[in-house]
Amino acid sequence: MEAVTIVTVLALMQFYWFGIEVGKMRAKHQCKAPAITGAPEFERMFRVQQNTMEQMVMFIPALWLFAELVNPLWAAGMGGVYLIGRTVYRVAYVKEPKGRSVGFMMTVLPTSVMLVWVLVVAVQKLI
Amino acid sequence: MEAVTIVTVLALMQFYWFGIEVGKMRAKHQCKAPAITGAPEFERMFRVQQNTMEQMVMFIPALWLFAELVNPLWAAGMGGVYLIGRTVYRVAYVKEPKGRSVGFMMTVLPTSVMLVWVLVVAVQKLI
Amino acid sequence: MEAVTIVTVLALMQFYWFGIEVGKMRAKHQCKAPAITGAPEFERMFRVQQNTMEQMVMFIPALWLFAELVNPLWAAGMGGVYLIGRTVYRVAYVKEPKGRSVGFMMTVLPTSVMLVWVLVVAVQKLI
Repeated sequence: MEAVTIVTVLALMQFYWFGIEVGKMRAKHQCKAPAITGAPEFERMFRVQQNTMEQMVMFIPALWLFAELVNPLWAAGMGGVYLIGRTVYRVAYVKEPKGRSVGFMMTVLPTSVMLVWVLVVAVQKLI
Repeated sequence: MEAVTIVTVLALMQFYWFGIEVGKMRAKHQCKAPAITGAPEFERMFRVQQNTMEQMVMFIPALWLFAELVNPLWAAGMGGVYLIGRTVYRVAYVKEPKGRSVGFMMTVLPTSVMLVWVLVVAVQKLI
Repeated sequence: MEAVTIVTVLALMQFYWFGIEVGKMRAKHQCKAPAITGAPEFERMFRVQQNTMEQMVMFIPALWLFAELVNPLWAAGMGGVYLIGRTVYRVAYVKEPKGRSVGFMMTVLPTSVMLVWVLVVAVQKLI
């Protein structure tokens, strides 16, 4: 489970990092808290961070259930795709929101596959 | 624990689905990212999704602690109430925000009961 | 692990409480859902709750990984700092957003320390 632990910590650190970047954008564009609207670049970075939270709260439980019920190494591999996908998403979205699809799919797919797979295995075990 | 796993996956998939519905509303009402305001229907669906995330990040840890310390089958039952409650909440809120109370209570109550129960059991074990 | 369980439940209850306070501010300042802007006091309390969610979804996984891989009692101690820090943050932010730094650091530091520590231990175990 060490590889799954490492993926989890990296996903949390990535989200942490996006939070720091939101803070930097606040300072750069003088968007004082509690405002969440203002310069487009700030709004985009804020949406990247918020969307990453939405994805992360699905990804982490999916990752651990998949590691437990299916295979920890495959789980770690799925996690690698997620981590790269979120980075691609962040870079593309802040440049231009329309370009966020590839990175988005790269983080949505691993979670989707793991969730469906876990559901099938759990239902089979139950019946 | 299979029933608890299934409830967890269904809760994550439900949140996932609400996210897809937010995307559809974006397209329907032409609310381009990163905007989070616009057509009332879009704003309501977005609030449903955001509120579901707030509830889900409390529900999932409460569910697993309750399953571990109290009873996994009761946990799964509580989870069933949560899942139905969130669906009721989604349908009612998008029609009319005032009608969201019943579904809201159906998701808040199971989590509250499980949290208080787990706290009592954990404190008793500690002392 | 009882102490870690108690810290987890208290962190979830604290977030739950902030959610109730957001609801009260909605009523007080007549900010009807789905609006998330309006009276400054409402906006601040809303930001407190949202920021607490962002911190909590990092804190809880970090807490349990640290308890498992390093030491459950130290984890509970880190959790105590987090809980006090969030309370300080809530009180200071609603008075004046500029004063939020101390409470913010008190919740960010325990999570950061635990995440880095867990990463080091997990990498050492893997290699």
